[in-house]
Amino acid sequence: MRTLKLTLAYDGTGYAGWQRQAGAETIQALVERALQPLEGCAVAVHGAGRTDAGVHALGQVASVRLTHPIDTDALLRALNANLPPAVRVLCVEEADDRFHARFDARGKVYRYRLATGSVAHPLDLRYAWHLPQPVDLDALQAAGALLEGRHDFASFQAAGGTATANTVRTISRLRIALERPPDWRPASGGGEIIGIELRGDGFLRHMVRAIVGTLVEVGQGRREAGSVADALAARRRASAGPTAPARGLFLVRVDYH
Amino acid sequence: MRTLKLTLAYDGTGYAGWQRQAGAETIQALVERALQPLEGCAVAVHGAGRTDAGVHALGQVASVRLTHPIDTDALLRALNANLPPAVRVLCVEEADDRFHARFDARGKVYRYRLATGSVAHPLDLRYAWHLPQPVDLDALQAAGALLEGRHDFASFQAAGGTATANTVRTISRLRIALERPPDWRPASGGGEIIGIELRGDGFLRHMVRAIVGTLVEVGQGRREAGSVADALAARRRASAGPTAPARGLFLVRVDYH
Repeated sequence: MRTLKLTLAYDGTGYAGWQRQAGAETIQALVERALQPLEGCAVAVHGAGRTDAGVHALGQVASVRLTHPIDTDALLRALNANLPPAVRVLCVEEADDRFHARFDARGKVYRYRLATGSVAHPLDLRYAWHLPQPVDLDALQAAGALLEGRHDFASFQAAGGTATANTVRTISRLRIALERPPDWRPASGGGEIIGIELRGDGFLRHMVRAIVGTLVEVGQGRREAGSVADALAARRRASAGPTAPARGLFLVRVDYH
Repeated sequence: MRTLKLTLAYDGTGYAGWQRQAGAETIQALVERALQPLEGCAVAVHGAGRTDAGVHALGQVASVRLTHPIDTDALLRALNANLPPAVRVLCVEEADDRFHARFDARGKVYRYRLATGSVAHPLDLRYAWHLPQPVDLDALQAAGALLEGRHDFASFQAAGGTATANTVRTISRLRIALERPPDWRPASGGGEIIGIELRGDGFLRHMVRAIVGTLVEVGQGRREAGSVADALAARRRASAGPTAPARGLFLVRVDYH
């Protein structure tokens, strides 16, 4: 048996997220099915982050144990030949036998993209949350700064059965800035893209999207920046803002060191 | 009657192009249907460029004559409320009564995007032509320079019934350069985007895509750069390269002065 580390990118639109589930197409199931003809039997692939339905990935990491001796370049080509174009394996590496993409992850970087301007540009549709009302970047940044550090993020965890008991996480960096516009697209409608990038040691289910939903309330003047600290302290989902839509969220990178 | 100038952006994926046609959804038909409830009768919208099926627009221009006195801001909102999110009106302006988006256009800018690198990134799928084999940028540029100026582009016109008799056009600028990568996406697979931007006084059907198909043959070493001049001189479609896929093409801008 050998252990391999796969790095993947995907457009999550139209998929039911990473994790295998009955009756819905998921990225994990696609990768497992792409490996099966090669290995000749069912293969389990473990992802670093269980991205939700509609969430995209630029650098998801997965681990898999195989008996087949295929070299890594040929495996990359074989996998991509068996996957839909919206899901691509970017890199295949030999890993230590004990490597597990989820348990060994030391940190993850997520990015959320907000599109401003009165008209939603068609090319941003799939990859940003459009906010037609103005957003105050300074207020967003002030509120975001209150979330950096080690906190109990219980208020920012998805309600329901999948809740985790230990809800303390560390956000080592939360950076909010205007994206540099692409040099090939004419400016239109005064819209800009605000990028919210978070690095943390781990994220609860829906945590990034609940943070973004809360920050947007601040940015639109519907919540005081300081109330974000109250939301943390309350440890109740209802004290934070709504969950931002999946389409603006990207798993950018998984760190192992 | 008043005459209005509309500026539109659209994601052409899944549409049969600009021009109204039976049995297929087109951008022109969508805009006309979006105006009809307002005007109370059928309205004809004239587009500057009849983009083909799957081609995108960042700044298509259309003219329309209306009797309804609705102000331009309200019309923009009403149109966007009646259009699918992939088609957006970016701007509505009052125009001279004689304004016609197609007949008055003095020039157009088109951009074609080539994605290089062995693996096609999922986020570039809809908006670029992926070339897994290496492309020589210098060779592309050398060949592109031969197409600038006033030429008979008969070899670069779609074969078939829609052919135009006068096939002389002027390309006032053909610029080929690497795109600056987005600051929010980690580099992956060594891939880069090559942008090919053309400004001309007019373009024949499939002309930009036939030019790109020919330049790519040069960039991949399957054709000499100098043979592009021979292709022009031959005035036969077969002497140029294949038609590049629609998904990499954008109508960037229409100039009226």
